[in-house]
Amino acid sequence: MRAPSGVITLLTDFGTHDPFVGIMKGVILGRAPSVRVVDLTHDIAPQDLAAASFWLRGSFRWFPSGTVHLVVVDPGVGTPRAEIVAAIDDHFFVAPDNGLLSPLLQGARGSVRLHRLDRAALGLGAVSATFQGRDVFAPAAAALASGRATLDVLGPEVTAIAPGRLPEPRVEGGRVEGEVITADRFGNAITNLDAAWIRRFTRPRVTCLGRTLPFGSTYAEVAPGETLALINAFDVLEIACRDGSATSVLSLEKGVKVSVEEGPAPGSA
Amino acid sequence: MRAPSGVITLLTDFGTHDPFVGIMKGVILGRAPSVRVVDLTHDIAPQDLAAASFWLRGSFRWFPSGTVHLVVVDPGVGTPRAEIVAAIDDHFFVAPDNGLLSPLLQGARGSVRLHRLDRAALGLGAVSATFQGRDVFAPAAAALASGRATLDVLGPEVTAIAPGRLPEPRVEGGRVEGEVITADRFGNAITNLDAAWIRRFTRPRVTCLGRTLPFGSTYAEVAPGETLALINAFDVLEIACRDGSATSVLSLEKGVKVSVEEGPAPGSA
Amino acid sequence: MRAPSGVITLLTDFGTHDPFVGIMKGVILGRAPSVRVVDLTHDIAPQDLAAASFWLRGSFRWFPSGTVHLVVVDPGVGTPRAEIVAAIDDHFFVAPDNGLLSPLLQGARGSVRLHRLDRAALGLGAVSATFQGRDVFAPAAAALASGRATLDVLGPEVTAIAPGRLPEPRVEGGRVEGEVITADRFGNAITNLDAAWIRRFTRPRVTCLGRTLPFGSTYAEVAPGETLALINAFDVLEIACRDGSATSVLSLEKGVKVSVEEGPAPGSA
Repeated sequence: MRAPSGVITLLTDFGTHDPFVGIMKGVILGRAPSVRVVDLTHDIAPQDLAAASFWLRGSFRWFPSGTVHLVVVDPGVGTPRAEIVAAIDDHFFVAPDNGLLSPLLQGARGSVRLHRLDRAALGLGAVSATFQGRDVFAPAAAALASGRATLDVLGPEVTAIAPGRLPEPRVEGGRVEGEVITADRFGNAITNLDAAWIRRFTRPRVTCLGRTLPFGSTYAEVAPGETLALINAFDVLEIACRDGSATSVLSLEKGVKVSVEEGPAPGSA
Repeated sequence: MRAPSGVITLLTDFGTHDPFVGIMKGVILGRAPSVRVVDLTHDIAPQDLAAASFWLRGSFRWFPSGTVHLVVVDPGVGTPRAEIVAAIDDHFFVAPDNGLLSPLLQGARGSVRLHRLDRAALGLGAVSATFQGRDVFAPAAAALASGRATLDVLGPEVTAIAPGRLPEPRVEGGRVEGEVITADRFGNAITNLDAAWIRRFTRPRVTCLGRTLPFGSTYAEVAPGETLALINAFDVLEIACRDGSATSVLSLEKGVKVSVEEGPAPGSA
Repeated sequence: MRAPSGVITLLTDFGTHDPFVGIMKGVILGRAPSVRVVDLTHDIAPQDLAAASFWLRGSFRWFPSGTVHLVVVDPGVGTPRAEIVAAIDDHFFVAPDNGLLSPLLQGARGSVRLHRLDRAALGLGAVSATFQGRDVFAPAAAALASGRATLDVLGPEVTAIAPGRLPEPRVEGGRVEGEVITADRFGNAITNLDAAWIRRFTRPRVTCLGRTLPFGSTYAEVAPGETLALINAFDVLEIACRDGSATSVLSLEKGVKVSVEEGPAPGSA
């Protein structure tokens, strides 16, 4: 396993309206003074495990190997759900055992190690029932990032974790149907259709809410205000609107179905 | 007094919509290049001194001893109000003298030192009338965090500062009445009722807007969509809604009264 | 040219709702592990080049000399617009060639060097059509900030860049007319009227939407709820409301005209 990079990323649904994230950083700096902490985002919709998994999977490889990714979207806080510490493709992860990490396992290119956190290994003080990001997850991430603890020290290896919440596309004949899983700040609707699905088609014909969308490779291929489908920078199908918001223009919400099939050959009617 | 930890936290009502906070960090890095800066939050409602005091008091102990906490919520910017530099329980504070720090004095466990900032001690350039976070407070925090200046160097000791703005609970017979002072991102309503008040009761009966709320210890004790009262991770009474927003469901606003009294013994009618 | 300060600032319209900014920091830390990254703001309105230029110009001098300022507001992403790396007054800049940097040239006090980025100089992997902040701009900023590359290495010098988008005030007789270019978090309306324009008048008379505003030097000069015009901490004319939002109270929007002329002498009718 790779040595820690000294970087911790944070991905939560805590928002930045309150000092929750800052307090987690205080706990981390108290235990690992030289670690660098980077916010991925704290604006995951409350308890939206699918969006959290999607962004985590699309983000972690852009950090140095050995980075610790701390993910706290935790509807089960205060219940006896377990906590997981893991190593996937030379990155470390700390998260509640609620499906957050599972979508990363499918895409793993190298080794995967999953451990159930043994809180006793961390030397914790009192653990609150409602803010375990501060009381459990931050200390675990600091222990890994500082190199003071390995996965083996933090708890026993396990072979299974809770199933993921990212919906899978359905294949039906020559057609694959996915759905909108989240939208970004610009109103681009992001689907669960990986580029690999789309590349099976010579001329992908993308349909959504009864409308066929032009398929392009950059926003600039359509006129301002027009919508299109494209493979985005996270390698999934996205529905966008040039200089505008596709989710507003097309009334796209989480869960709206998006399907792709082979389009008609050029010249055919 | 403890040596500086090399960490500065920021707590303001500046928001992150504009570069005000980034500019303060630029000023800090110019004067204390190796300091680490951590955002507590910048989303205090404009000029909400009570919420700022509450979150500061609940946050600062999670940082290493010797951390400098810079707090700028400053309705009096441009008037002749003083600035305070202080040491409370091995942490440093820099803030306008408008009551922000006063609620910390009551809970202090160790020594307290309060000094009025003498701007001349900082070697400042021009000071604007509207952005003293940049022109006065950031330089003061950098001076303390870098160890270049002590409280004594920064100004004369004082014995009193402006009174705090966090309302105090009222005790009436066997009943204590507090109020909602702020809400967090999830719509949990946070009150000024410290856990110590609640622990006086064997079976706390919490009432708010004519409604009695179940008293529990974690969100998961009620069904999704149900509300409850609990002692939160900041050791105050909070009104929460499992998987939902208590402030929306119960129409809770800042200032709404919340009272606690002894509940009926089990088995009584 | 000054040596790099080891600091990179980020100014984008990416928001913080998604992990885009965090990913850029991951790319930077992978290429320049000891660099410090400071957010100016990510809440520039999507594609608002004028506001981005305004805040960049008002912010960069508050950072140490040798800081790299990375600015990504990029309506032309995916089109063949160039990228610019520049040095202005001992600071470095990396931005798309769309006018973002041009307003800084007029105010430059010292030397200006403009280079067109040669992507081949960066040893990039695949470049996406929609997230060049990650794939092009972050690597360029890391190369400059780490000292691994100079402007000369990153591409050929150029003499002209795209024209700026910050509107210029108009002078008409004894009257100067500017406009609202953005508003800050507090609802202060910020204009393109530099202090130098205002100082030409002995008694500036500020008019906006048919209303004459008192001209003062700090918010506290008017009663709570009252509006005034003042020179703000960024040295431009601002329309503010004490303890309130001028943009709400006066219905000020981007583009609203604000004019200044000589006011009547004291004692005149």
